Amino acid sequence: MSPPAPLDVDLVGVTDTSAVTIPDPLTVNGVSGWREKTAKMPTGVAASSSSDMFKRIISLGGGLPSADYFPFEHIDIKVPNPPGFSPEATRESGSVVRAGKHDIKDGTSLYDLEIALNYGQATGAAQLLRFITEHTEVCIIIHNPPYSDWQCTMTAGSTYAWDTALRLLTERGDYILMEEYTFASAAETAFPLGLKAVGIPIDEQGLIPEAMDEILSNWDENARGARKPFVLYTIPTGQNPTGATQSADRRKAVYKVAQKHDIYIVEDEPYYFLQMQPYVGQGAAAPPPPANHEEFIKALVPSFLSIDVDGRVCRLESFSKVIAPGSRVGWIVASEQMVERFIRNFEVSSQNPSGISQIVLFKLLDEHWGHSGYLDWLINLRLQYTDRRDALMHSCEKHLPTEIAHWVPPTAGMFHWIEIDWRKHPGVAAGKTREAIEEEIFLSAVEHQVLLSRGSWFKADKSAVMEKMFFRATYAAASSEKIDEAIARFAKCLRDQFGL
Amino acid sequence: MSPPAPLDVDLVGVTDTSAVTIPDPLTVNGVSGWREKTAKMPTGVAASSSSDMFKRIISLGGGLPSADYFPFEHIDIKVPNPPGFSPEATRESGSVVRAGKHDIKDGTSLYDLEIALNYGQATGAAQLLRFITEHTEVCIIIHNPPYSDWQCTMTAGSTYAWDTALRLLTERGDYILMEEYTFASAAETAFPLGLKAVGIPIDEQGLIPEAMDEILSNWDENARGARKPFVLYTIPTGQNPTGATQSADRRKAVYKVAQKHDIYIVEDEPYYFLQMQPYVGQGAAAPPPPANHEEFIKALVPSFLSIDVDGRVCRLESFSKVIAPGSRVGWIVASEQMVERFIRNFEVSSQNPSGISQIVLFKLLDEHWGHSGYLDWLINLRLQYTDRRDALMHSCEKHLPTEIAHWVPPTAGMFHWIEIDWRKHPGVAAGKTREAIEEEIFLSAVEHQVLLSRGSWFKADKSAVMEKMFFRATYAAASSEKIDEAIARFAKCLRDQFGL
Repeated sequence: MSPPAPLDVDLVGVTDTSAVTIPDPLTVNGVSGWREKTAKMPTGVAASSSSDMFKRIISLGGGLPSADYFPFEHIDIKVPNPPGFSPEATRESGSVVRAGKHDIKDGTSLYDLEIALNYGQATGAAQLLRFITEHTEVCIIIHNPPYSDWQCTMTAGSTYAWDTALRLLTERGDYILMEEYTFASAAETAFPLGLKAVGIPIDEQGLIPEAMDEILSNWDENARGARKPFVLYTIPTGQNPTGATQSADRRKAVYKVAQKHDIYIVEDEPYYFLQMQPYVGQGAAAPPPPANHEEFIKALVPSFLSIDVDGRVCRLESFSKVIAPGSRVGWIVASEQMVERFIRNFEVSSQNPSGISQIVLFKLLDEHWGHSGYLDWLINLRLQYTDRRDALMHSCEKHLPTEIAHWVPPTAGMFHWIEIDWRKHPGVAAGKTREAIEEEIFLSAVEHQVLLSRGSWFKADKSAVMEKMFFRATYAAASSEKIDEAIARFAKCLRDQFGL
Repeated sequence: MSPPAPLDVDLVGVTDTSAVTIPDPLTVNGVSGWREKTAKMPTGVAASSSSDMFKRIISLGGGLPSADYFPFEHIDIKVPNPPGFSPEATRESGSVVRAGKHDIKDGTSLYDLEIALNYGQATGAAQLLRFITEHTEVCIIIHNPPYSDWQCTMTAGSTYAWDTALRLLTERGDYILMEEYTFASAAETAFPLGLKAVGIPIDEQGLIPEAMDEILSNWDENARGARKPFVLYTIPTGQNPTGATQSADRRKAVYKVAQKHDIYIVEDEPYYFLQMQPYVGQGAAAPPPPANHEEFIKALVPSFLSIDVDGRVCRLESFSKVIAPGSRVGWIVASEQMVERFIRNFEVSSQNPSGISQIVLFKLLDEHWGHSGYLDWLINLRLQYTDRRDALMHSCEKHLPTEIAHWVPPTAGMFHWIEIDWRKHPGVAAGKTREAIEEEIFLSAVEHQVLLSRGSWFKADKSAVMEKMFFRATYAAASSEKIDEAIARFAKCLRDQFGL
């Protein structure tokens, strides 16, 4: 290990987003005009706003390897052209974008391998951070930032950002608040830090604010053996595992409870751009897709960030569901003060996300697609996931025994949460527990050659008693034909199990 | 954030190195023959040794995005051919290696973008892990693993591996052992965890085992307010900042002290392959370069790992100094039990290093160069750094006032540690402190347009009193001409300061 020597580390500053944040509403079409007005992109290795003072100096200070020894001369990436995004179109008519070693010196790009392959700032490279910040302002804060000193920093993935948030915000023995069923890895990140989770009851819109208020209002430090929680972890859109999406009103109500009890909200939003077209059922005419970028953006449910007047929200953003998980590049958006704390931690832990990932993303997003092309891509994803979700809904309607299987069609994300009325299972009369019946159904499904996730795997509080039974299915990866076959098998399993 | 759903997470195992570790001595030429005998490479997304049981099943379980939505069709990388590694040769006659989306299905590679761009195992991909494990066995453990259940896992950089090691091995309030001057970021990683550092006295061979023994033997829990340290952080080769390299005998002596006091050794070895040819001074005939790979490997000082009979060593490995820091891919080597703990932590924090970085490294190291080509590359680096080091030494001999400047030519790494006899500074008579004089010299050097790092920046224990004064110079990045000019400027600064 060896990031830049202390001198370089001290010179953090240029790639923070204060160089990128702007006061006026930013729109897709306004970006290029705005860029012309702003400062020249800093393009050096671990570029620093203070570097001017060293321009004539010869530095024998930092331990940065020479780019002569990076064994990559250039990287060519074949990428799709907007708006026709089918894999076939990409193979046949995609574009090749090149990242060379010395593009900056050659004047052909603002970012090159000489920079991307060396050590970088903990924020990630200014070149990509600019795009990310503009995207955040245009699509997520949406013309109305409730306070001006918000910032972004890249992260080596959202899981690591969440781990870092917990390290910054909690102490061993603390409780954190989560949806009663939550992304299992998010809970598994918390437990080894000595944390416990309280599950907040949820409905088809996710977190129930009244239930959250009740838990916090009646918090008994002695009974719990811990102080009142300070951190809420929530997946507001297309929640994992339930698929629930909090409406704008629901978010406002949750935010109010957070204000009342001084709760810091970490909103994990990997599925934000997997918000889909309304589900209208089989046979009905499909609602028209968004007519333009503005309509698309307006159709998105408002983020917690956009209603955050106190600086009590940290948003975890990810390219995993919209570009590729393997990039291991995410970012956070939060108040300047919080982002500064994340950066200080990254400097002595993950440092910065892979420079190779960053330049590949920059070439695609900034140089090739631009904001307009990226929005085309996101709209395309919206429609693709709508088709997938619809296929799964149609299969469920067609196959599943509605005497015992119930669900709400998801409006966002990758997941479908199916409730099974386990009390009608013949095992109940024989004295079997809910847990035993869930296991029996799961194993029977495997025997029927279909794999779904068991609801109990997602309990935030492992000691909580489950009244209900759920299985989670995803429509993200399998084809429509396979989805239909899988649901048919699951239906057969349920009929066998329940004697229907 | 959203790594594979719990089901996938539970199925960790196939990409751990138990599938890759072998009992017999492994040599460069023996690798291909051995590979033929071993199990087929697992090539699925987050490939798992238990996946056979699911082959006919349709999984609606894990939330993995479909590769159809990864907007990268292929990546072409232009890389140098061994053994002629000059940048000019690469531009003119390098090779282009391609990573396609479906190379595995197409039968053209063991690794492709469909896999690399999706979620992966915390160990990193088996494809690259195999190369790394073989490289570790051939070059670092060198034919003589002291125990058989050692393992490797990739890391999102060595800084993050070190952070993780501290999280696993220490408690708030603990002391850790470090060289009295150490890599500043390594100390900065420890301090926010509530740790303090004891600096162990060093000489031109680094850690002094007798001094380490004395500190530990006389540890006073009450006086220190902390239990006896358990972790030693050391940079045994080309130490940062001092450039010192521990000899084989020195390492054995340090290991014995570690055994006596039950100390766990974290050896941070980014500079291991920057071991250089012996320094023979100006005019003397340069020693011949290693005649072959075997001679090169034999010339390397033995790692702590190779003498570790207790499993008390964790080695931090990095591509940063030998390939490119921007890859943010490193790995650790340690006992199976320790590696398992790292993996469990990575699963809920950094997950795995960038898949884009991994496939770029795989294409270069495994498919294009192979072990033989990589060793050619490392030998080339050895000779390049020898030239750089020699240039700096010659400049120091030519310019620096030896009345007050003393040094030992480094045998490894990037750093040159220059002691300045500050007691001869005229400021002493005027009552100035060592600190004040160091600052004065540093600022005077900046005025003379040369930047060196101040020795006091590298103190492990910030409260320790420094008797001596040092400046650190690097020969890693500047050209020979610039190095000579920089040292001439520093010499002028010293003569001005000391009135010589």
